[in-house]
Amino acid sequence: MTMQPSMQIAPDPTNTRLMRPIQGHDQSGRKREIMVVEESALTLFLNTTEIITAMTIGDYPAYLALGFLFNQGMISDMNAVTGVDIDDELNVVVVRTREQTDYEDRLAKKIRTSGCAMGTVFGDLADMIRTITLTPGTVRTSWLYALTKAINTTPSLYLAAGAIHGCVLCHQGTPLVYMEDVGRHNAVDKIAGWMKCHAVQPHDKILYTTGRLTSEMILKSVMMEIPVLVSRSGFTAWGVELARTSGLTLIGRLRGRRYLCLSGEDRLIRDDDKDTDSWETP
Amino acid sequence: MTMQPSMQIAPDPTNTRLMRPIQGHDQSGRKREIMVVEESALTLFLNTTEIITAMTIGDYPAYLALGFLFNQGMISDMNAVTGVDIDDELNVVVVRTREQTDYEDRLAKKIRTSGCAMGTVFGDLADMIRTITLTPGTVRTSWLYALTKAINTTPSLYLAAGAIHGCVLCHQGTPLVYMEDVGRHNAVDKIAGWMKCHAVQPHDKILYTTGRLTSEMILKSVMMEIPVLVSRSGFTAWGVELARTSGLTLIGRLRGRRYLCLSGEDRLIRDDDKDTDSWETP
Repeated sequence: MTMQPSMQIAPDPTNTRLMRPIQGHDQSGRKREIMVVEESALTLFLNTTEIITAMTIGDYPAYLALGFLFNQGMISDMNAVTGVDIDDELNVVVVRTREQTDYEDRLAKKIRTSGCAMGTVFGDLADMIRTITLTPGTVRTSWLYALTKAINTTPSLYLAAGAIHGCVLCHQGTPLVYMEDVGRHNAVDKIAGWMKCHAVQPHDKILYTTGRLTSEMILKSVMMEIPVLVSRSGFTAWGVELARTSGLTLIGRLRGRRYLCLSGEDRLIRDDDKDTDSWETP
Repeated sequence: MTMQPSMQIAPDPTNTRLMRPIQGHDQSGRKREIMVVEESALTLFLNTTEIITAMTIGDYPAYLALGFLFNQGMISDMNAVTGVDIDDELNVVVVRTREQTDYEDRLAKKIRTSGCAMGTVFGDLADMIRTITLTPGTVRTSWLYALTKAINTTPSLYLAAGAIHGCVLCHQGTPLVYMEDVGRHNAVDKIAGWMKCHAVQPHDKILYTTGRLTSEMILKSVMMEIPVLVSRSGFTAWGVELARTSGLTLIGRLRGRRYLCLSGEDRLIRDDDKDTDSWETP
């Protein structure tokens, strides 16, 4: 139950800004006090353009903002970023770039005709990932089992309070960065922001999430150029389609020593399949 | 395992447009075929203004669109709605109103200065619910247990495929409308749209969700004027705060014969507390 020595960011269940005790009553009327995670609104600006308001636990707002912008294809080069300003009182984070970005040009055009253009940008993103080629490589079953064990035994807000999603950047069987957030996409974006700030190579990494493998999760993984995405949860059909189109290895329903691989089977090396129980629908 | 006779909308696991079989391999390399839920992008317009793109399973797009607009406070009167057009090929739904709405005026002003204004609108919503007074009333523990049993034994996409959220409009111990969606907020919005279209009174209803009790879920429940919100999942601190401010009865972690009430305890009648086991943190 201790933080892995190699883990560079781990959940911090001792941080009193991230959860608080709340009193209530149980089914028999007894007074109970439980720990409940915080949630607040953070509004993200790219220069002078308001982009989105995210509901977040509130740690690492700069990583969240940068990761979101990279994962949406709104910025593509860390060198273009001149600064990130955080206003704790206004719950605002502003990412500044050297020049107005392509995205702002496109958004401005779109806004003139029909208002909020996030939907259109999503369509652009699905096109954009077609230009990304993920590297080959391997993922071993033994790594997956080691990751599950390491992640499940790391102290976390999830273990202390529940009602939160986690996302972990991993190398082979070792977790490197473990982020949590009330919004499941935020946890991924915070990892993306951390990777960009530290110029971490994605090609030999594995991304682990507690959330479902929906289209947005697959788009984010591919934008991050991480070739393997793993979850304890299930799939959506569009998520599987996007993963297959992108050559992403997609492993879901990872529980104990069982999992399902629905895309990118070629990277998988089954070096630990002692459990030969038949797989059952959960 | 049969649909409740009183249920007016129930999940339809026989609808082949909502899920499909997908093949993959399990941990031992055996070929497996599982059912996976569909997910597609639906872009919502209010008259000529693009509002949002939602990832949805795709059933009931008109209820989803109307419910979203009502729950965001973008429209407030069903009489103002002149039509809902659905374009299946473009994945677009357009809600038309007699006159341009206040929301479009506000959005237009906002867009001129800073682009997408969804964040600002969210702030407006938190103010708006302060003007709503939820009716008193009761919720009985025996209803909660009856609902859990009825919902868990109703055939659903969740039971067939997993990776989907459910939301159920209930009266006392009886489920009336059971919606599912890949986006957990969509399931609530579809219920809101159904209620508006059928002029269903909210004051004696209970809203049940499989998802977490976050700020957005509380805002939607209060906008729908439903006084009781119940979930099998946990809470966020802001969610609890909003519920207490609004006088909403908030019951979470409902599993088997256990639950926690963190707000609106005054409506609760414990008529069935045979289980006196102490409550444990999950």
